[in-house]
Amino acid sequence: MLQVSKLLEGDKRTAAKMITLIENDGEGKQQLLSEIYPHTGRAHVIGVTGSPGAGKSSLTDELIKRARGDNRKVGVIAVDPTSPISGGALLGDRIRMQEHALDKGVFIRSMGTRGSLGGLARATRDVVKVLDAYGCEIIIVETVGVGQSELDIMHYADTTLVVLTPGAGDHIQTIKAGIMEIADIFVINKCDLGNTKKMMIDIAQMLDMSPRFDGRWRPPVAETSVKNNTGIEELWSLIGQHLEYTQKSGELDQSVRNRLSMEVVEMAEEEVRRLLWEQFNKNGSMDDLLDKLAQREADPYNEARKLVQNFICQIPNGKEL
Amino acid sequence: MLQVSKLLEGDKRTAAKMITLIENDGEGKQQLLSEIYPHTGRAHVIGVTGSPGAGKSSLTDELIKRARGDNRKVGVIAVDPTSPISGGALLGDRIRMQEHALDKGVFIRSMGTRGSLGGLARATRDVVKVLDAYGCEIIIVETVGVGQSELDIMHYADTTLVVLTPGAGDHIQTIKAGIMEIADIFVINKCDLGNTKKMMIDIAQMLDMSPRFDGRWRPPVAETSVKNNTGIEELWSLIGQHLEYTQKSGELDQSVRNRLSMEVVEMAEEEVRRLLWEQFNKNGSMDDLLDKLAQREADPYNEARKLVQNFICQIPNGKEL
Repeated sequence: MLQVSKLLEGDKRTAAKMITLIENDGEGKQQLLSEIYPHTGRAHVIGVTGSPGAGKSSLTDELIKRARGDNRKVGVIAVDPTSPISGGALLGDRIRMQEHALDKGVFIRSMGTRGSLGGLARATRDVVKVLDAYGCEIIIVETVGVGQSELDIMHYADTTLVVLTPGAGDHIQTIKAGIMEIADIFVINKCDLGNTKKMMIDIAQMLDMSPRFDGRWRPPVAETSVKNNTGIEELWSLIGQHLEYTQKSGELDQSVRNRLSMEVVEMAEEEVRRLLWEQFNKNGSMDDLLDKLAQREADPYNEARKLVQNFICQIPNGKEL
Repeated sequence: MLQVSKLLEGDKRTAAKMITLIENDGEGKQQLLSEIYPHTGRAHVIGVTGSPGAGKSSLTDELIKRARGDNRKVGVIAVDPTSPISGGALLGDRIRMQEHALDKGVFIRSMGTRGSLGGLARATRDVVKVLDAYGCEIIIVETVGVGQSELDIMHYADTTLVVLTPGAGDHIQTIKAGIMEIADIFVINKCDLGNTKKMMIDIAQMLDMSPRFDGRWRPPVAETSVKNNTGIEELWSLIGQHLEYTQKSGELDQSVRNRLSMEVVEMAEEEVRRLLWEQFNKNGSMDDLLDKLAQREADPYNEARKLVQNFICQIPNGKEL
């Protein structure tokens, strides 16, 4: 039996087991998360994303060191939506992070697509809660790729870093749409590799074109080089400034509320989905229905509507379905 | 007003406009699909997937030519889950397919993440229906990447080709799990580039380890080279054999039924999701609830349960929520 009290005391094995339970969508997950919830809400969640090869893991590594320098407990969730590997396994170049493995103040977890039945973004959100209650003051969520799942995952970060490398400038054009929305800070990493000026200009132009930063936080650009150990301190300071800004402006509260709304409705959806399938399957005439559909005597759009009508008691606003 | 009769007559502009409507989740989409549905079910849907750079587009190009040689009308849906570009734009190397642009017997459409509000897999499924009713006998759905969205998309193909290249042998190990499930035919493309023997053995071993092919279709391996123009005829023949096998064995009927079940329930889900949000938002006390949640006086798990309870009239099997 997993005890929340042990998690709150900072027992690492309990944290790890709870995360596994969440990944496996195991028995008692909701109850557990329900118990954990009152003890969450203190961590600063930092998202780190960007193209493969941008050096996200090394950068995360530096952020861990920086946070540990302030003696702050750190959790890292390394999410790879393309990998089936999950759990204790350290993905790819995350092996570098192993130097922190013996540090009790650092908790690192990899998550792949395996063991994330409710979707990777949701699993990540729940794992963040576990690490928050476990006492992590800083939680870094690192993820590769630029697909939808990444954007979904970053939705749960308080401060999102988009990591780029010099010379990838033309790439900005293609990923612009999604990235614009989620970046709180741009990081030009590996700035030792080339001239960063072109990219600085590209980013600035991109931001100038968008009216959404008027009077609000305009994502600054940090230049870092893990190799030369430059820019990390400045980046760390920007991260702190962003948190302070969102706290003072009320934007943090607003995002927390948005996330909570989404969380409640998404969980309700998950449950409703399960019940819908149950209802569809228990329906004795399902075989007949499928025959009719296959014969084109019925159509799936009308059948879906009927299914919903039979399912719901309160039709909001008295609308017809 | 879009007329289904014009689609059935083979009017290309009507087909294009309907697809745009679907992508934009526009007004009247369900009604339109409902009208189209009786005229579907005739096309053979061929999925083409595999890693980036495996030469999927050139191969698709060859398949188009082959089908046109038999004077069969062809539709191509090129899906790129990582691209925000959609609609008329031709993605990347799909430009090669432009030689077919003037052929009235070929309809090519690119789909990106933009304009696929209900999810890319669902949009693809609906676009397949439009092309089916439009009269395409062969519909090729091509998609990049090896993520979940790709697997979802391939679910709607009758025959799925997994395209590999020689030398990528070790890669098989990592993507095995998902690929095993969806491949009906393996294609070692660009077989002019290297020795295919190693990969043939890898695939055979992989298949041997799985009991699921006993007495059923065991995915054959085709070796193709677009450059040397070899293997296409054999691949085309294997595609035909697979269709014949699934028709005779009843597996095609079974997958059609499975897909129809999913389709009905997924659409019901979509509608229920919309209604859930509506109910959540119209709830006058939502602000209070969010306050409580933010203050940790309530928890999202219990609130989700309550939302479901207030929403549903028939609880299947009388289970408690």
